[in-house]
Amino acid sequence: MSEPFQPAQKPESFSSTNDEAKLHLYTVGTPNGIKASILLEELHKEYPENKQLIYDFIPIRFSEKDQKKPEFLKINPNGRIPALIDDNFKGHNIWESASILIWLIDQYDKDFKFTFQDPKLKSDIFSWIFFAHGGVGPMQGQANHFFRYAPEKIEYGINRYQEETSRLYSVLEDQLKKPESKGWLVGGKYTVADINVFPWVRSYAWAGIDITPFPNVKKWLDTIEARPAVYAGLGVPTRTKKLTKEEEDQKAAEARKAFGWGK
Amino acid sequence: MSEPFQPAQKPESFSSTNDEAKLHLYTVGTPNGIKASILLEELHKEYPENKQLIYDFIPIRFSEKDQKKPEFLKINPNGRIPALIDDNFKGHNIWESASILIWLIDQYDKDFKFTFQDPKLKSDIFSWIFFAHGGVGPMQGQANHFFRYAPEKIEYGINRYQEETSRLYSVLEDQLKKPESKGWLVGGKYTVADINVFPWVRSYAWAGIDITPFPNVKKWLDTIEARPAVYAGLGVPTRTKKLTKEEEDQKAAEARKAFGWGK
Repeated sequence: MSEPFQPAQKPESFSSTNDEAKLHLYTVGTPNGIKASILLEELHKEYPENKQLIYDFIPIRFSEKDQKKPEFLKINPNGRIPALIDDNFKGHNIWESASILIWLIDQYDKDFKFTFQDPKLKSDIFSWIFFAHGGVGPMQGQANHFFRYAPEKIEYGINRYQEETSRLYSVLEDQLKKPESKGWLVGGKYTVADINVFPWVRSYAWAGIDITPFPNVKKWLDTIEARPAVYAGLGVPTRTKKLTKEEEDQKAAEARKAFGWGK
Repeated sequence: MSEPFQPAQKPESFSSTNDEAKLHLYTVGTPNGIKASILLEELHKEYPENKQLIYDFIPIRFSEKDQKKPEFLKINPNGRIPALIDDNFKGHNIWESASILIWLIDQYDKDFKFTFQDPKLKSDIFSWIFFAHGGVGPMQGQANHFFRYAPEKIEYGINRYQEETSRLYSVLEDQLKKPESKGWLVGGKYTVADINVFPWVRSYAWAGIDITPFPNVKKWLDTIEARPAVYAGLGVPTRTKKLTKEEEDQKAAEARKAFGWGK
């Protein structure tokens, strides 16, 4: 019997401390996977002395259907990535990307670097996180499906989800352009609300979305992208290079083939 | 200029106390709207002396596009229902159905009747809430769209979303059938994790989903439906009667017409 998962690998920030890992991230380099590794890297930089925050990661192989194996369903009953095991809490398992962010903030961000102590501002973070988790993620995911992966070209599906994703971006744009926002979603500072939606918006081109109508979103993307912790988080489980148009088409064709959806 | 919203109306449990309302729910009788009124009714029954929990509601008229008016976008920048104004916290606005549930629990469920004090169990509630908010809600919503509303009949879309919704129900079924679950999603008791997904699953027939492969889900539905507070919450903003097959088809046709999607 083959091993269900590949052995843990070392994130860039943790190359010398991996053996001490207390947090174990099961992940793939998708928008949902990346948001978890970005916050882990941000927390590491803010709290370098906290040994409880040392993490490693286990790449999940979609090609081998690791995410549907019984061992993994004990960690996430929905069979999706990412999932987190926390040995600081007796191996507690957390699943759903946003649930992982909330867990990490509530347990480890004791100085409120990426959240707020004030209940109203914390609540605003929740509203924006749920907006992204129920809107941007699933709708952009459907845009990806109809635009990139579907075995038949269905204009109705492509238009429906690209239009809804653009509408959701316009909600982000309206928020970010308010002077009092200071360019962030909640409370005038960079928080988990931004981290939660950043990896989805960053992939706008893959979904066929035009970013030019949203200049404040574009500026926000660039500002987040420039953070060292974000660069580190984007390297988990592997660093992917920027693709050319032709490489993107090739990647989509390979995905369709892997899904058994023809050439 | 017409009034943007209808005047507040009196929920069944609050007919004598409406004038004292501190919480104001902007809602429609959809799955996302109903989950908020159910929790408000549950909290009222558990904490009858807490005057901060007295609420009224403002029906939003989709036909008049109330949800896209500037007055409403100040309450919910995404232009969707439900939204909540909390006068106990200086008129704080909460939007996204699950964000409202979290707010109400964190501020008002001081005895942990519908949640847990233990951080691991609270985290399990988050995982199940995000599972529903990013999965069951949006996917069943797309099943509704392609099965009931879309102006053209697209088999690919109908099958894609009905199949994914059924798969998500199978995840619920596997959880609810575990003996230690005692028939509930988290920690062996009825919590906001159940309230959050109940109104969606209750509408399985509208999405064209067969519930018979999920007997534990059906039993869970019936158990929740029998709660007096749930009955009260299902009456906000108006009590809708069970439709016949013909009435359902008529309702869908009227919705398509209202959306400008042909007959």
